[in-house]
Formats: sequence, structure tokens, C-alpha cells
Amino acid sequence: MPAYRMWIEYEGTPFRGWQIQDNQPTVQGALEEALQIALREPVRITGSGRTDTGVHARGQVAHFHTSQPVDTEKLKRSLNALTPREIAVLHIEPAPEEFHARYDARKRRYHYYISTEPRALDRHMRWFVQPAPDVARMNRAARHLLGTHDFSAFCRTQSETQNRICTVEEAQWVQEERPGDWRFEIVADRFLHGMVRAIVGTLIEIGQGKRPEDDIVRILQSRDRREAGPAAPAHGLVLESVTYDL
Amino acid sequence: MPAYRMWIEYEGTPFRGWQIQDNQPTVQGALEEALQIALREPVRITGSGRTDTGVHARGQVAHFHTSQPVDTEKLKRSLNALTPREIAVLHIEPAPEEFHARYDARKRRYHYYISTEPRALDRHMRWFVQPAPDVARMNRAARHLLGTHDFSAFCRTQSETQNRICTVEEAQWVQEERPGDWRFEIVADRFLHGMVRAIVGTLIEIGQGKRPEDDIVRILQSRDRREAGPAAPAHGLVLESVTYDL
Repeated sequence: MPAYRMWIEYEGTPFRGWQIQDNQPTVQGALEEALQIALREPVRITGSGRTDTGVHARGQVAHFHTSQPVDTEKLKRSLNALTPREIAVLHIEPAPEEFHARYDARKRRYHYYISTEPRALDRHMRWFVQPAPDVARMNRAARHLLGTHDFSAFCRTQSETQNRICTVEEAQWVQEERPGDWRFEIVADRFLHGMVRAIVGTLIEIGQGKRPEDDIVRILQSRDRREAGPAAPAHGLVLESVTYDL
Repeated sequence: MPAYRMWIEYEGTPFRGWQIQDNQPTVQGALEEALQIALREPVRITGSGRTDTGVHARGQVAHFHTSQPVDTEKLKRSLNALTPREIAVLHIEPAPEEFHARYDARKRRYHYYISTEPRALDRHMRWFVQPAPDVARMNRAARHLLGTHDFSAFCRTQSETQNRICTVEEAQWVQEERPGDWRFEIVADRFLHGMVRAIVGTLIEIGQGKRPEDDIVRILQSRDRREAGPAAPAHGLVLESVTYDL
């Protein structure tokens, strides 16, 4: 069966996350419904991973199979016409038949956007943080995340998986164009449930002087979610891209 | 009476433009209502200029007078709590008593945002343009806008004002970070009603090969709005900043 890979952008606000659920608006559900109309056959899609309620994506990747080869440009236009406007299909291309959007993913990149000033135009994707955190201090703290660690202390669901080892390759705060705007960039081989939001919530507390600068080391060692800070709100988080070998 | 200047960002979507109107949601109306609650006196505000229904601002400027000196930081926080979330008061500071946000403005900068690819996260402030225009061609055409001209052909309201002379200092398309995203930057001493949207609509037609590259020259000379292209939609337009001598 012909296999395809697609890149999807979405605003998470109106959805109960990526994963399909009965009687709930989800990104996967909206895409499968549109695919069924466009291709006149039921199509299952598999994403690189789930995103939670309210979390956005600029580069979610999914794969699917069809019974017949399809015109990918035409399908892209159809899906963009058929899905809610909070979903944009960016690109569709043929994939190797064995390609798996989840198992073949080598790295995921998330960005978390904050502003220390009130914002109107991008308020739906930026957390307003006051008092302004000390970003240099947050960046020194973030360095303790780099490398391979057990991230249980930053995992929301205790039952999700036995293996809580992740390798973090990048973790830094970057100043954006407008004064007061910052983003946290994190790249890892995999992420646990709620991991980025727990990390950001903890780093902000460190930046606001509520925790010692090296608290990340102690929290990681504890493997206890109660040691980390509160989760940052969903609306600041964007799945930016997923990297594959094939 | 103490005078103040404030900088305001807003998403135009839910408002019938800047200027106050009876029984319509407007940015000026929302700000005056919030000021009356915060300061316990009626306050009139004067903006640098009107923006139309659906047009956004990242740097609108307004002035107002109060009967007593006010704590500007506290007032900013109050206004951000009291106004709809589509409005953000960025900064308030004391102004010379004679300062006038409209008459003292020397330059205004507008940006118009487009994408040739479907977008989800910034769809509220970007016009989706297909087929993709030839941007080099649009930039050659835009050079004809530079300098001092009668812009009647790009003015929506024929009765608005006798003087339709504007001096355009900058007019160019700039590529943004994501492939497919472009913005048109235009700076002038003043803008007529609907001027930027008429210019963008015309340039896009030139970029799509529907008009000759030097059509701007002919259109300017005609002084006839019917010669220019259709207005680009309001939601791509942002008043970015206003420049003052004082």
C-alpha cells in the first residue's frame, strides 16, 4: 500500500490534544475525517507523538497508507479546505512503506514562548510571566538538563512507561526580536508526558529566585514529580519539528 | 492638566476599528471605558490615527489628560486587567502638555503580512496568497511608490480630505523566517483611508502577472481608485509604529 508522510501545523486551543477520542475535537480526528472525505476510504494516521490539550505544533509529522496512489498536491489542498482553520497541512510526500512517524523519529524540538510584557497579537501562543525572570540564571540552570538522565521528576503520568531515560541535546533560552519576548528551545530524542511544561515551570521559578540555581540536579535525582515546579500553561508550547533518518 | 502618552497593541478582529462609535466594540471605546473605571473620571483619548475594522496594531500611540497626576505603572496594570484580552497597553509615560498623538506624528510604519503556504498559528494576521507572486517583480513595482505623490488612486473615501499628497519613505517586500512568509513594509508621513490595503492588493496583482510591472505609475497619475487593484483583506495589516519629534 502506498505510504505518505505529512507535516502539520495547528493551533491547539480548540482541540483536546492530538490523539483521537470519541466525541471530542482532536487534531488526529479532524485529519482522519477530512482524509476519509477526500479519499473516499477510511484512513488511519499515526503522529510522531501526542500533544496535550491546548499545545500547538508548527511541525507535527504523521504517516498514513492509502489503497491507491494519490496526487499529494491536490490532497493537501483538499485537506486544508476540509479541516478547521486551526489546522494547516503544510506538505505531503510519498514515504518508504515501512516509515513510521513515531518509531523512526530521532529527535523532537519544542519551543516554549514567554513574554514579560502584555501581548495582544500572539497572546494565544505566549505565556505572560511576571515578575520578569533572570534569564542568565535560567540558562545556567538549564545546562543541568543536557545529556542522558532519568526524567521521572518531570513526567506527569507515573504509569505511562517504564523507561524514563531521555537524552537532551539542547536546552536554552533565546531572546526574541521584541524586548520582553523569550523562547525556551529544547531538543531531545524523546519527551515524557508533560515534560517540557514541567521543566519550563521549574526554570521560571529558578529565574524568579524562588529556587536555588542548581535545583535541577536535586530534582532529577529525586525522580519525584512533586519536587519539580508547577507545569507552565499549555498555550506557550509548540512542537516545532521532528527529525528522521529516513 | 497632566498629559500622558501610551503605546497600545491590539488584535483588530473583534473591533469595529479604532474610532469610538455608539453601540459598537472599538479599541478607543474599550480604552476609554477602562480609563474611566481606573481613574474614576471620564477620559478622552486621541490616537495617532484610525485603523479600520479588523486591522491590527503593535504600536498605536494615543494621548490623554487627567485631572490629577497618575502612577503610570499602576495604571498600565489596571488597563490591562480591565480591557479585553485583544488589547494590550504596552507603556504609559508623562507627555508634554501640548503633545498631540495625531498632529505631532511625523511618520507611520505599516507592515502587511502574507504567506503563500497555509498557516494555522498566525492565520489571524497573515493573508494566504495563491498563486505565489513574483516578489522581485513586486519590489521593482513598489519603487514607483517612493517619494511625494498624490495617492488619490489608493484612497477609499473620496470625500475624506482635499489633500491627498503623501511622502513614502520606504516600500519593500521582505522575506521572513519561514519559507513562504513575506511582509510588505511601508513608511510614510501620512496614509489615506484604505491606502496600504489598496497598494498591497495592486502589488499582488502585479506579482501574479495580472498587471504590467510599471502599472503603479499609470495608477498614481489617474488619481482614480477604480484603476488600482482590490483592497487586500484587513487581517494582514498591522500599524507597527508611529514616530514623533517630541
